[in-house]
Amino acid sequence: MYGRYTQDLGTFAKDEAARLRLQEGDTPRPRHPSELLEYSQGRCAPCRVCALQCQRFLISKVGEDWVFLILLGLVMALVSWAMDFAIATCLQAQKWMYGGLDTNVLLQYMAWVTYPTVLITFSAGFTQILAPQAVGSGIPEMKTILRGVVLKEYLTLKTFVAKVIGLTCALGSGMPLGKEGPFVHIASMCAALLSRFLSLFGGFYENEARNIEMLAAACAVGVGCCFAAPIGGVLFSIEVTSTFFAVRNYWRGFFAATFSAFIFRVLAVWNKDEETITALFKTRFRLDFPFDLQELPAFAVIGIASGFGGALFVYLNRKIVQFMRRQKTINRFLMKKRLLFPALVTLIISTLTFPPGFGQFMAGQLTQKETLVTLFDNQTWAKQGISNEFEYLGILEAWHHPRSNVFVTLIVFILMKFWMSALATTIPVPCGAFMPVFVIGAAFGRLVGESMAAWFPDGIHTDSNIYRIVPGGYAVVGAAALSGAVTHTVSTAVIVFELTGQISHILPVMIAVILANAVAQSLQPSLYDSIIRIKKLPYLPELGWGHQEKYSVRVEDIMVRDIRYVTLNCKYRDLQQVLHSTKMKNLPLVESAESMILLGSIERTQVGALLSNQLSPQRRVLTLRQKVLSEDGHGLSDSSIRFQISTETSSGTPARPALRKPLKPALKRVPSSPADSPPAGSADHTGIALKSLFCANATTEPTEAQGTAYHKAKRVRISIVEEMILGDKMTPAEILEWEEQQLDQVVDFSSAKIDPAPFQLVEHTSLHKTHTIFSLLGLDHAFVTSIGRLVGMVSLKELRKAIEGSLTGKGVKVRPPLASFRDSTASTTEADTTALRQLWNRHQHQHMPREAGPGGDDDDDAPK
Amino acid sequence: MYGRYTQDLGTFAKDEAARLRLQEGDTPRPRHPSELLEYSQGRCAPCRVCALQCQRFLISKVGEDWVFLILLGLVMALVSWAMDFAIATCLQAQKWMYGGLDTNVLLQYMAWVTYPTVLITFSAGFTQILAPQAVGSGIPEMKTILRGVVLKEYLTLKTFVAKVIGLTCALGSGMPLGKEGPFVHIASMCAALLSRFLSLFGGFYENEARNIEMLAAACAVGVGCCFAAPIGGVLFSIEVTSTFFAVRNYWRGFFAATFSAFIFRVLAVWNKDEETITALFKTRFRLDFPFDLQELPAFAVIGIASGFGGALFVYLNRKIVQFMRRQKTINRFLMKKRLLFPALVTLIISTLTFPPGFGQFMAGQLTQKETLVTLFDNQTWAKQGISNEFEYLGILEAWHHPRSNVFVTLIVFILMKFWMSALATTIPVPCGAFMPVFVIGAAFGRLVGESMAAWFPDGIHTDSNIYRIVPGGYAVVGAAALSGAVTHTVSTAVIVFELTGQISHILPVMIAVILANAVAQSLQPSLYDSIIRIKKLPYLPELGWGHQEKYSVRVEDIMVRDIRYVTLNCKYRDLQQVLHSTKMKNLPLVESAESMILLGSIERTQVGALLSNQLSPQRRVLTLRQKVLSEDGHGLSDSSIRFQISTETSSGTPARPALRKPLKPALKRVPSSPADSPPAGSADHTGIALKSLFCANATTEPTEAQGTAYHKAKRVRISIVEEMILGDKMTPAEILEWEEQQLDQVVDFSSAKIDPAPFQLVEHTSLHKTHTIFSLLGLDHAFVTSIGRLVGMVSLKELRKAIEGSLTGKGVKVRPPLASFRDSTASTTEADTTALRQLWNRHQHQHMPREAGPGGDDDDDAPK
Repeated sequence: MYGRYTQDLGTFAKDEAARLRLQEGDTPRPRHPSELLEYSQGRCAPCRVCALQCQRFLISKVGEDWVFLILLGLVMALVSWAMDFAIATCLQAQKWMYGGLDTNVLLQYMAWVTYPTVLITFSAGFTQILAPQAVGSGIPEMKTILRGVVLKEYLTLKTFVAKVIGLTCALGSGMPLGKEGPFVHIASMCAALLSRFLSLFGGFYENEARNIEMLAAACAVGVGCCFAAPIGGVLFSIEVTSTFFAVRNYWRGFFAATFSAFIFRVLAVWNKDEETITALFKTRFRLDFPFDLQELPAFAVIGIASGFGGALFVYLNRKIVQFMRRQKTINRFLMKKRLLFPALVTLIISTLTFPPGFGQFMAGQLTQKETLVTLFDNQTWAKQGISNEFEYLGILEAWHHPRSNVFVTLIVFILMKFWMSALATTIPVPCGAFMPVFVIGAAFGRLVGESMAAWFPDGIHTDSNIYRIVPGGYAVVGAAALSGAVTHTVSTAVIVFELTGQISHILPVMIAVILANAVAQSLQPSLYDSIIRIKKLPYLPELGWGHQEKYSVRVEDIMVRDIRYVTLNCKYRDLQQVLHSTKMKNLPLVESAESMILLGSIERTQVGALLSNQLSPQRRVLTLRQKVLSEDGHGLSDSSIRFQISTETSSGTPARPALRKPLKPALKRVPSSPADSPPAGSADHTGIALKSLFCANATTEPTEAQGTAYHKAKRVRISIVEEMILGDKMTPAEILEWEEQQLDQVVDFSSAKIDPAPFQLVEHTSLHKTHTIFSLLGLDHAFVTSIGRLVGMVSLKELRKAIEGSLTGKGVKVRPPLASFRDSTASTTEADTTALRQLWNRHQHQHMPREAGPGGDDDDDAPK
Repeated sequence: MYGRYTQDLGTFAKDEAARLRLQEGDTPRPRHPSELLEYSQGRCAPCRVCALQCQRFLISKVGEDWVFLILLGLVMALVSWAMDFAIATCLQAQKWMYGGLDTNVLLQYMAWVTYPTVLITFSAGFTQILAPQAVGSGIPEMKTILRGVVLKEYLTLKTFVAKVIGLTCALGSGMPLGKEGPFVHIASMCAALLSRFLSLFGGFYENEARNIEMLAAACAVGVGCCFAAPIGGVLFSIEVTSTFFAVRNYWRGFFAATFSAFIFRVLAVWNKDEETITALFKTRFRLDFPFDLQELPAFAVIGIASGFGGALFVYLNRKIVQFMRRQKTINRFLMKKRLLFPALVTLIISTLTFPPGFGQFMAGQLTQKETLVTLFDNQTWAKQGISNEFEYLGILEAWHHPRSNVFVTLIVFILMKFWMSALATTIPVPCGAFMPVFVIGAAFGRLVGESMAAWFPDGIHTDSNIYRIVPGGYAVVGAAALSGAVTHTVSTAVIVFELTGQISHILPVMIAVILANAVAQSLQPSLYDSIIRIKKLPYLPELGWGHQEKYSVRVEDIMVRDIRYVTLNCKYRDLQQVLHSTKMKNLPLVESAESMILLGSIERTQVGALLSNQLSPQRRVLTLRQKVLSEDGHGLSDSSIRFQISTETSSGTPARPALRKPLKPALKRVPSSPADSPPAGSADHTGIALKSLFCANATTEPTEAQGTAYHKAKRVRISIVEEMILGDKMTPAEILEWEEQQLDQVVDFSSAKIDPAPFQLVEHTSLHKTHTIFSLLGLDHAFVTSIGRLVGMVSLKELRKAIEGSLTGKGVKVRPPLASFRDSTASTTEADTTALRQLWNRHQHQHMPREAGPGGDDDDDAPK
């Protein structure tokens, strides 16, 4: 509520306006049939009436969630299918070129290498020019957006186009890149655009809370229609984007993802690719005895090894990015020629996979899809057992090298693809890392499976029946485990079941995925969190499991005690000082420096607006006029009319569009009292001061549109005002004097928008609970109070430091880095220890929050 | 934070104490090896040292989450397996009896009927005597507990024993009852007991936040080890118990549920029941062409019909319970003979299923498990197509009746089982409804499937290959759809995949489940919510999807404006009046009746304690003594010592154990100022008043243990005090006079525990957002403020009314019932309308919150 509060009440106004529009649209509508009756001489009048009614019915239905979700699912399925089609065409074109030139190896090589390089370079250039936001996976950004942070230009049509075309070209090049991360982003953009489009029919789609819910559903659709895996899609999107999940959204996600997956697969049937709706990578393992109990250790080994591998992948990926950034020479060169890096990487990778060259040792001629199909194959490749002369048929042949065995091919494949994928995903094109990792995992699983099959040619089971080992099952387990380790998700297990259409290996898959997660989570952040950190997006680290110390660290250990605040009876000069001394976006408003009772929070921009209004040329001119007119004796009413005009004009100037939507006008307004009268006696008693706040005028509201850079606004205003009134007759010295005089006045908060219920914590709230609240409500700061008294503030930064500091330490060792906050800011006037804490922190001092100075000049005692 | 705040800080103290205990336990331990060195003449000293170190290591590991989860999984798997074994034995015993007596139908009937009647009656009686809380499903209660509500005696060993034994007997009787709901409860109890047991080794398990997380994992384990469905278990438990789910718990649930399912199935392998780990109800549908695209409408029909059926089931179940309650004659009779109702119901149901009787038309001889196995069968029962003379083999024979066809049998089965299940689940024994509903759904699906098979004997597909329709697939779809409709969950889809070991029907299952949910959710609450309402547990209804009006209703429309409050400068008499005039559990503490600034909330019991302390006989005697001693001139120090003794004694009296854990002592304490000095001048200025609150003494803290019924406490105390001091020398009239005098004193809040940050909303918060916050934070009330001023309160009740009221109305019609709140309480002094709202509510008045009376006697103007 609190973090998004600001926006929501802005949208609330919009919402209401839209509703009014709609209602007004409804009221005059009954005219239409009567108007139409005039045309009733014409034939199709009843038809028209009917059509009109249908239209009205449809418009009323447009607002319902399921219509939106069906449309979203449909659009995404079409996008996904069309992209798959385009990508398949691109890949076939490459194969055709490569195949057609088999007379000359050099020409073949040129074709094999040039094609992907051109595609990737085009993709990188296109994305760079149209929308640089489309680069990369998109899941890290969606995670940030779903946390309530507004990322600029992230959900626009331009980005959508750039992402779709860029991704198609990137995947069409045959590089080890995935489409799943970008698809989450594409689906989210699709949802955002769709809701903007549908809002033309009604105001339903302008509510921010609802839009967030729809974005969460869209993420599920993205994964769901990418893999035709509705359940896995929903779960995966929950795991990678949310910290807390509303179960009521769950159902939205399932609905849209199922519909989308259904359409996606139906398109394949209609296109005669498939006979009926089945899984994307259908496997045909035997059902009666999928695996032996004694094979479980091997699956566990796959899980643990995948955990290490996943952590290594994330580490490698991050190191490559950091290396590219740090090497200044390379960096400068690359910055000039932005497209060189993608081209170079593509060149290296495609050279190495060139089938007649090194590619023959790593099944280089197979596309990602073909690789997966062969890896999940039912047969055993190793030449043991009965089928001693196993024949490599069709595409399986790629894995077979006459002068080496299948183990070598698999090992080379895994090693080469590992660094290639880590490198390729750093290319600035729209791309994901899930699919490449999935393939590597499958290859690793296959390797273990083949080894097991070679070790136990007749299976392990000692009873009468011989059940051979199925290496394909190991490949499935490996794919789930490695992708689970890289993304820190368990739902990859569900994705593989839906991808393969078989659930018989559920237990091995679950065991491997859980073990892989346990290992990977203790070593590295997930790939998406790693990207979030690299891109420096605002984030809140997860609390790992088993960190008992989280339950004992408390807000008072991590909070910032030395914060700037605004008092109810402060002067404009104090406001100026506060603005200069802090960069906080939200300032606490307290009753007085003595009582420190927190009344609310005021945005920095609001404080700027207050100041700018106080020092505005209009007011200056008005004062001047008033002085002159009061000598005439009857000018007051005239001036107030003038003033109203001037504010109306100023409200017409465009407000800053990119900034957060404004706070709600918390103050009740009484329409006709003059705006510039200072609230008389607001300093003497709280009750009266508050009442004056309540009943004060707010006709100066439009000034909120003025930015913090109020000097700029001043200049804009001057021209308007100068045209209106006689012109500014003061000299600069007079202006300065006047401004100084104005700054000494007591602030009139009546026109400012105050958030009356900022989020409050108490000192003893545990870190664990604070983390929960921050992630539940999407906060970025919270004030710490003690019986209404403001004693400190915690922001995302402090929380992040506390959690990450403690992740490195063990147990109670977490305290030293945290204690530094306390020691640096607190003074030692009063001991503030409960009996229990006294026992515990016997040698540590705990201090009262800073006592405010005795004077009323509350901001001067703040050491800067 | 807010709702659970009260408890958490109570547990925090415990936690710290436990940690201290542990640390103290750690420090002296190094003694042990040195002590052991004295015995080093003995042989096994190194062994002992080693064992000791191992033990210490193990104890340090005990605190980690995964140890707990593994233990929980292990225990639950064992319980589940043992219960399954016992149930199977019970059922076999019945069959054996029935089979052995096949010479005499009457004897056979007696055996068939008596056996379940005895078992059910025993189960009902046993549960009734040992722990009545064990009756029923347990999921509704777990949902309430996970919302933060403490239910008495719900997670104790006694309830555990009662539930396990009662459930075994109930299921062993062969009634249409399920084990899944109770298993959620059993797993939760198991987790609670385990954490209490493990807390003997360390204080880790005493944190309430952590316990809630563990309970959530336990629910997943419950479902997981019941069906051997780890993924479905986690998802199902999330859907039925949570509103908001922390993704970090997800992983805990998966871990424990997978381990539990693994052990559960491994036990079956070790017991030679199975060859390897496979699904519980393994199906063998063909993989290459599981279903035709043109069959999808049939699946959709199953989904929609299941939706109606599920809603009907919930309705029927509720009506039966309500009928039994309302019929006073029946009720009075049944209350006397509690065991008669279970016996009667069992008698009716078992009579109807008697195989040689009516049971032959409804496969009455099959157990629930056998029924499912046969329904999921691969073959087609209807006598069409090639296998014209289909032979009913083995247990399949039960479905075949020589004089009727399989359709009749299925229809009779569905109809009879439907009401039987709805009736049987109202029996006061531990039982769930999931499994019976699942079976009915499977039968319905089979019916549709058989009809389709009869209609299209050669399948629908028109191409070269003939793919026959698989009625077993329809049964799977029907089972998932009906159970999804009754429980309002989508994850039953995942459960069926895990139960059957096949995922090939994913799309039909998802479509049917989603349609069933859409229909059922619009008609009835889920079975669990229905039970919650019947049992009158505190709950918050879900916001249905597509309720746009939720976004426009605001807190000010639903809040209660006329609330009682406590002011900082009030008198004890006012406290008394507040206590008499309201039943609210938490009273707001405001600065004064004029300013209405909310300072915090104080528990009702705290107010009671304040009053009881003020009027306590000790204080009376002390005043008396002081008066006497002050005449001596030096008695002050003496009396203060006495006072300390007296409070120490009183703290030794047992506190009410069942009440909520106490609020944290929000007030800072300075150890040595006398407790009974009234805070001088606390009424004249806020700052000083608050400072006095901050620095005041709290040696009177133990009085919090006194209840609201302070008169009782008084009587208990009198005896203690009388022994200590000279005895009570006042006459009743004097006491009354003294008490009246005491009541006129200004309240000293220094000893009361005040929650300094109660949850606050603002008037414009939308209902949707309020609902989110309430369910996120598990609140049961929130104060509504406007710039720090208290203007109203919203509790669960208001929210519930608002949501349920609006569920019946459509669109904007929601306003009238809500507007009643506003009109009844508000006065028309000031108009409080923003420009937009003014436009909208042109004819509706909006009023300022009630202005407090001019006098300081703030509680007298409250009309009662």
